[in-house]
Amino acid sequence: MTVLPQSVTEAITAQRDSHLSRLFELLRIPSVSADPGFSQDVYRAAKWVSTTFEGMGLKTQFVKTATHPIVLAESPIVPGAPTVLVYGHFDVQPADPLEEWISPPYDPTVRDGNIYARGATDDKGQMLTHVFSTEAWLKSHGKLPINLKFLIEGEEESGSVALAQLMAGKYNDQLGCSVEEKLACDVVVISDSSQFGPGIPAITYGLRGIISFELTLFGPKQDLHSGTFGGAVANPVNALMRVMAAFQDDYGKVLIPGFYDDVEDLSESERTQWQNLPFSEDDFMQQVGIRATFGEPGYSTIERCWSRPTMDINGITGGYQGEGGKTIVPAKASAKFTCRLVPNQDPVKIANAVKQLVQVRVPQMFTHKLKVGHAASGIVVPLDSPYMAAAHDAITAGFGKAPVLIRSGGSIPIVSQFKERLGVDTLLLGWGQNDDNTHSPNEKFSVEDFHRGIVASAHLWQAMADHVS
Amino acid sequence: MTVLPQSVTEAITAQRDSHLSRLFELLRIPSVSADPGFSQDVYRAAKWVSTTFEGMGLKTQFVKTATHPIVLAESPIVPGAPTVLVYGHFDVQPADPLEEWISPPYDPTVRDGNIYARGATDDKGQMLTHVFSTEAWLKSHGKLPINLKFLIEGEEESGSVALAQLMAGKYNDQLGCSVEEKLACDVVVISDSSQFGPGIPAITYGLRGIISFELTLFGPKQDLHSGTFGGAVANPVNALMRVMAAFQDDYGKVLIPGFYDDVEDLSESERTQWQNLPFSEDDFMQQVGIRATFGEPGYSTIERCWSRPTMDINGITGGYQGEGGKTIVPAKASAKFTCRLVPNQDPVKIANAVKQLVQVRVPQMFTHKLKVGHAASGIVVPLDSPYMAAAHDAITAGFGKAPVLIRSGGSIPIVSQFKERLGVDTLLLGWGQNDDNTHSPNEKFSVEDFHRGIVASAHLWQAMADHVS
Repeated sequence: MTVLPQSVTEAITAQRDSHLSRLFELLRIPSVSADPGFSQDVYRAAKWVSTTFEGMGLKTQFVKTATHPIVLAESPIVPGAPTVLVYGHFDVQPADPLEEWISPPYDPTVRDGNIYARGATDDKGQMLTHVFSTEAWLKSHGKLPINLKFLIEGEEESGSVALAQLMAGKYNDQLGCSVEEKLACDVVVISDSSQFGPGIPAITYGLRGIISFELTLFGPKQDLHSGTFGGAVANPVNALMRVMAAFQDDYGKVLIPGFYDDVEDLSESERTQWQNLPFSEDDFMQQVGIRATFGEPGYSTIERCWSRPTMDINGITGGYQGEGGKTIVPAKASAKFTCRLVPNQDPVKIANAVKQLVQVRVPQMFTHKLKVGHAASGIVVPLDSPYMAAAHDAITAGFGKAPVLIRSGGSIPIVSQFKERLGVDTLLLGWGQNDDNTHSPNEKFSVEDFHRGIVASAHLWQAMADHVS
Repeated sequence: MTVLPQSVTEAITAQRDSHLSRLFELLRIPSVSADPGFSQDVYRAAKWVSTTFEGMGLKTQFVKTATHPIVLAESPIVPGAPTVLVYGHFDVQPADPLEEWISPPYDPTVRDGNIYARGATDDKGQMLTHVFSTEAWLKSHGKLPINLKFLIEGEEESGSVALAQLMAGKYNDQLGCSVEEKLACDVVVISDSSQFGPGIPAITYGLRGIISFELTLFGPKQDLHSGTFGGAVANPVNALMRVMAAFQDDYGKVLIPGFYDDVEDLSESERTQWQNLPFSEDDFMQQVGIRATFGEPGYSTIERCWSRPTMDINGITGGYQGEGGKTIVPAKASAKFTCRLVPNQDPVKIANAVKQLVQVRVPQMFTHKLKVGHAASGIVVPLDSPYMAAAHDAITAGFGKAPVLIRSGGSIPIVSQFKERLGVDTLLLGWGQNDDNTHSPNEKFSVEDFHRGIVASAHLWQAMADHVS
């Protein structure tokens, strides 16, 4: 068991209300990184974060990039102690459809013990638990038991373009040293995921990867009258249906050639362990509002979410979408879609297979454009490290219960980059819940989990010192 | 050859500029019937038309309906003369995508001899040719050679709901008699279509029918994170692709079961006649901006447009459509689509076949809704009537050239209703051009064709008197 200095515990308790109101400040900034219309807000959120670090006495750097800023901070050096790099992000997903929010997305509101706002759990609330725990250590105890570095970006929801450039050394001039030196650490900590369920804290040891695409088919030079021209001019929406129908069968199997070639089978021990997790198919269906679960035959819902690759169309558009109807042959049609990948699948190989499938399926009379977006490999981290042991102790202290070991179906592209560039593993310590509506209307984060996360984080710095030194 | 009173000819010539500026007045009203946001404008357009009729000394009725108004007018009785019913509409298609208009859709502008505006040709410009020719007769000659009735509606672009009710007798109280009595006539005249080409005026003796649908698939109760849930929750956009892909093959053949059962083969004489029309495949491709024509194997482009049924998706929507991406499993997806029908196909039978195909193809885990919209049968009218002879003479006089006989791929649902309810055929005298961008950005109507249409219409009233009396 980790023991915290009394002053740190007291400081965290005393600041409960202040932590919440400062989280609200950040939540009020609509820092949507995907939409250029919000780039000033992303900048404001970056400034909020860097000002907070400066106020804590951390050595802070505001890295200007070609897209959105990145904020770095370092605690005063504790010789001989391990170094932990905390990664998080201050950007958010778009809030639409706006009309489905019960309270406005950028006007944080507490209802039934939850904070409702875009970014509440993903990732402003979770990210700030580590900021506030560090602040409590520094302000009440005067120093940390370990070395801490923060790397907080503003583009996680739209491909982490600037961060990839930072990791590739593009901003070394601003850093004043190589990025490898700047970020050198023993382990990375990220809180940007969920507990297994209410009252069941978890450590996430695996993530799916991702690769995103946008396919556009161009037909006639403009929308045409479907009476005058219909039947003699190929309709790009009709064709897009046929192209995209070739990507998945009715049973959830992805039909991209070679898609499953490198997918590793689940071990029996992992399957058994997951079967023992308290999971209710009924609760799952009720949570998301569906009549039946779905997916590849032969796999459970947990297995489908955590260990099987997918192809989901995220958005489709073409022709007239307003009230009533409009009898046209549309000029163009497009689909945005993403594949979730599992460890050992190569995003480049999958991108090539998609390109080839599109090439084969799009009829010759159409011009088409396939945009390949951000990509990340799936990842699994070892379970037997001292960092894992530290996380286990810290979560037990903060949440009053030992964590279970889970994987996540989501993707945090930076995790594989930390492994490749810095040679370190990442601890994924999610304080959220699965029904927090990340990326959806009415995103929320439990007030209690926010506070427990701060306590667990404060313990984590001590546990790292205990287990690793 | 028809001979007009000198005074009528002079009046038309003298009013050239005034006709144009009064057309502009009507074009400035954005009377989009499909969008409830524009219903006040549809009303304004109706008032403009009824005020014009009143100013001409016609007995005018402004019929209020559950949706948009209908304007009726009758000329003073000429005993023993035939009665012609002119049908037209003052509503327009939506103008979007707005950014593609060179000049704003409701700010009529003349460029290169064409009037650019939404509704220029469909149908405000064409409809007014008959109004202005009648006005010229009445104001300069004091009377018409025949009996004229006008039936001008405001809902042609969104299913003619009120007109169908009027035809069914629902507004007989307002009419003061039965609708059959009110509209009793010998023949109907409609100008809401195109010439065969520039300098090639035409009489259209056939139309395709139409039936419209909107299919929506409902998935999870709201958009879900595609990382957390992807692979275990059925994606309604993915599924919609597969459902809609089942409606048409890559070669343009519609796959709705039984779709072609009642389609009549083209006669060899019609095929030959159409082959002799001056038609350039290259010009057609250039006009619409495509690399190759498309459609059912074994048919020419003209045959595909005029005599073969179709299935075109007019619009599709689902998930995130903004800038960048959003990694979601969308909550729902929908497609608006229409089938063009040919004579002898029964819209009800086709609607049932579509319902059944949707039922079979939509996976059980989705709730779905299929909306069946407006329908009309395809139609062909006889070529050997005195009315056809009158139209031939009038067009020859107005356009300086004898018309060719063509069909159109478009649909004018009211034409089959006139046949069923009033027992009369319809003359389709199109003054527009195929490249007028009806239903598209930059809709246009030739200034010269507008004036020629007025002259031809003035001749038509005389020719009807000559041929039919």
